[in-house]
Amino acid sequence: MHFADALTAASKTKSPVCVGLDPNVGKLPEGIERTPAGVLTFCKGIVDAVKEVACCVKPQMAYFELLGWEGMKVFWEVCTYAKEQGLLVIADGKRNDIGSTCEAYADAYLSAASPIDALTVSPYLGSDGVQPFIERATQNNKGVFVLVKTSNSSSGELQDLPTGDEVVHEHMAQLVESWGSAHLGKETIFSCVGSVVGATYPEELKYLRTLMPHAVILIPGYGAQGGGAADCKPGFLPDGTGAIVNSARGIIFASKGKDWQEAAKNAAKQMAEDLREVLKSSAV
Amino acid sequence: MHFADALTAASKTKSPVCVGLDPNVGKLPEGIERTPAGVLTFCKGIVDAVKEVACCVKPQMAYFELLGWEGMKVFWEVCTYAKEQGLLVIADGKRNDIGSTCEAYADAYLSAASPIDALTVSPYLGSDGVQPFIERATQNNKGVFVLVKTSNSSSGELQDLPTGDEVVHEHMAQLVESWGSAHLGKETIFSCVGSVVGATYPEELKYLRTLMPHAVILIPGYGAQGGGAADCKPGFLPDGTGAIVNSARGIIFASKGKDWQEAAKNAAKQMAEDLREVLKSSAV
Repeated sequence: MHFADALTAASKTKSPVCVGLDPNVGKLPEGIERTPAGVLTFCKGIVDAVKEVACCVKPQMAYFELLGWEGMKVFWEVCTYAKEQGLLVIADGKRNDIGSTCEAYADAYLSAASPIDALTVSPYLGSDGVQPFIERATQNNKGVFVLVKTSNSSSGELQDLPTGDEVVHEHMAQLVESWGSAHLGKETIFSCVGSVVGATYPEELKYLRTLMPHAVILIPGYGAQGGGAADCKPGFLPDGTGAIVNSARGIIFASKGKDWQEAAKNAAKQMAEDLREVLKSSAV
Repeated sequence: MHFADALTAASKTKSPVCVGLDPNVGKLPEGIERTPAGVLTFCKGIVDAVKEVACCVKPQMAYFELLGWEGMKVFWEVCTYAKEQGLLVIADGKRNDIGSTCEAYADAYLSAASPIDALTVSPYLGSDGVQPFIERATQNNKGVFVLVKTSNSSSGELQDLPTGDEVVHEHMAQLVESWGSAHLGKETIFSCVGSVVGATYPEELKYLRTLMPHAVILIPGYGAQGGGAADCKPGFLPDGTGAIVNSARGIIFASKGKDWQEAAKNAAKQMAEDLREVLKSSAV
């Protein structure tokens, strides 16, 4: 099934909650070893806790890479496990390169056999740094999420530079729309090329929604970074599709005690409920 | 020793040649297994062949990641081996993220114990996506190379957008200069924050050299991508320092036969000679 169709269906059935798997070993709950094996146990435990509530998980590659090749082994095991448990998997690697090197990244993460459904991509290099990912995504029913307006406070240094009548991130949004418009789903209006826009910039999110009518927007910055459900609302279409919202720390580290799985499940449920409330009010 | 001092010294003693380790398994010479073990054998063989000629190697992470965690194990083994053989090691990962995630990437690659001397960084996120790398570099005598104007044909889509009286890559160059100016070497005028500017844009290279007087410029795009020694010259200062030039395919795949090591050595020597000739003429 086309990635955007699968993601939209999962988002409707469960919720638009994406759980960020950011296994910072320094923050693991008590009783979990601060080793690659501990990270595996923890991530599987989070997957088990949220799989009925969230539409997808987003493993953050940095935390696995920090543990060397043993960490990368765990990364692949976590992706495989999440997929087996019925979750879509977005690898957050923000990869980018050109030519045959970019093809190598695309083959590494978006091959037909990969348990990963989509990869985040950083767009400084232009089309050359994105097209090989889109090609693999199109071939293998996978997806790509291109950074457009990120949630951090300094994102404007480059992304808000004025250029002509617009700013850089608006220009990037139009590139994302053009890259994706030939690769739409069969059951939705969305393409395999999504975008990343932070919940911390709700005004920009509202306008970017109009510039990218065919892009699913992955919204980070919820919870610990300061974004609330109401801030995310402009990323959604009136029918409640078109966006997913990521929270990592607020869910996976909801408790440092032995009730960490229960606490993660409750935090994910609460977030899903908060989003449902806010989106309901827009439909009326 | 400060990274820029070490790199400059190695560049003077040997040459400004940086050998790109892009072990595309489909292109390995005859007699080398197309497996992680084969990639390790090949990369060690290239290190042995070029270690007297090149100042550094640049392992391209995508080709290692393509081989899964076994590939990452080989990546670390290659970095360690190159370091042991007296070469500086620039990991080409184009990593980028924010906050604690960016710190995780920085700790993964630029810790004091890491065999890696420098990492390439993609700057779409602004300072938040670069400062954690610079902090680790400053603490541990490591370096960072920030993408400014890349060698690919579509690099202008974002990097050449006009903004005010300049274009985006010129603005980025000034950010690079400002990020690095507080972290200069003791024996050179260069900082631990370098930049990447492609040999395929010699005019831009010339101007960017003036905008970043304290940045070592890593110049890709030599050889297979079309750049020649003369195209690289504007990246250097009149004394022949301030830049290193990367070639991958032109050196590592110079022969597919059993003479691949000899061919790589000769190609690196020829490149060093071509650069020496061109730089000599500027000093006169």
